[in-house]
Amino acid sequence: MVNYPSGVKGRASKTSYSNQDKGLTNFAKRGMNFEDDINASNDYYLTHDIAVVHKKPTPIQIVHVDYPARSRAKITEAYFRQASTTDYSGVYKGRYIDFEAKETNQKQSFPLKNFHKHQIEHIKSVLKQSGIAFVLLHFRSRLETYYLPASKIVQFYEENNGQKSIPLELIQEHGFLLPSQKIPRIPYIEILNNQIGGGSNS
Amino acid sequence: MVNYPSGVKGRASKTSYSNQDKGLTNFAKRGMNFEDDINASNDYYLTHDIAVVHKKPTPIQIVHVDYPARSRAKITEAYFRQASTTDYSGVYKGRYIDFEAKETNQKQSFPLKNFHKHQIEHIKSVLKQSGIAFVLLHFRSRLETYYLPASKIVQFYEENNGQKSIPLELIQEHGFLLPSQKIPRIPYIEILNNQIGGGSNS
Repeated sequence: MVNYPSGVKGRASKTSYSNQDKGLTNFAKRGMNFEDDINASNDYYLTHDIAVVHKKPTPIQIVHVDYPARSRAKITEAYFRQASTTDYSGVYKGRYIDFEAKETNQKQSFPLKNFHKHQIEHIKSVLKQSGIAFVLLHFRSRLETYYLPASKIVQFYEENNGQKSIPLELIQEHGFLLPSQKIPRIPYIEILNNQIGGGSNS
Repeated sequence: MVNYPSGVKGRASKTSYSNQDKGLTNFAKRGMNFEDDINASNDYYLTHDIAVVHKKPTPIQIVHVDYPARSRAKITEAYFRQASTTDYSGVYKGRYIDFEAKETNQKQSFPLKNFHKHQIEHIKSVLKQSGIAFVLLHFRSRLETYYLPASKIVQFYEENNGQKSIPLELIQEHGFLLPSQKIPRIPYIEILNNQIGGGSNS
């Protein structure tokens, strides 16, 4: 059993997810992984010309590379670095969109420590440039995912100095529960479209 | 002397640049590196609230990770992967911007083989979503950098099936020579601003 650092969210959550699933009989969760679902949704948006959104690669600090003859370069020493921005960015109808996706096992609140200070700073910079920024908060045990405008995360974070947790009621009050559906699995563009179109979903 | 794969453009160009500089007496070039200059320009735009643009991390395929006791995770086997998108993206006045930066030692043309097919596909997707896409083409021997709207690169690429080179005259006709200045070193936002503002710089 390996422990992935927090920088490798995909693997970390996969690992924890499959462990968590052990012994459970809820087949709806089988094979489900939050990051995979987001990536599949992004693929759907891309192939249907709805939006172009990609996950950024995990930043790696490379220390040593071997160059075996007639083989491709092999990295033999490297370390995970903490990301300085959010994980996802892209374009929707000419507008810049930017988001971070996080998961929790909590049921009634979302721990702010899931967010790093530099991610909050990045979000603030994006908002200053009139970019569309938000977070997707996934409650594993509730099987619920919320779209929360980034301005709210920044506000909570700064009011609480990065400590504490955001109560679920506040997320429900200021955010939007993503509908449960198969394709795309995480339909965040629909919520976003209502937001920028002035529509109401609350 | 190591040979970095094409995926590590920063290092590769640094290496080739310093080699190229050997024996030259042109001190204007000393210490200059195209990628560093772009990153410094992005820092300038960020700290001055002009734009938020970041270089994406180099994608790495991780094969093996060691977890020494009381030490951070160490990647002991990994390989470079080819990027599936362009290197730079961000937000300017709410608009999504996306670009790729390339260098050449050629003097009269820019080889199209510097661009990969999936990068061209990515650029086409961005243009479909009304994103602002362009390329920065740096001629090392001329000490000139051109801003070329991405639609032109796509057109040249598809007309020539990714082969051949773009003649300098065509780049000069359809693109914009970046002014030579110190801060920011690569003032691409100024060109972009004229473009989207309907101003003319040609």
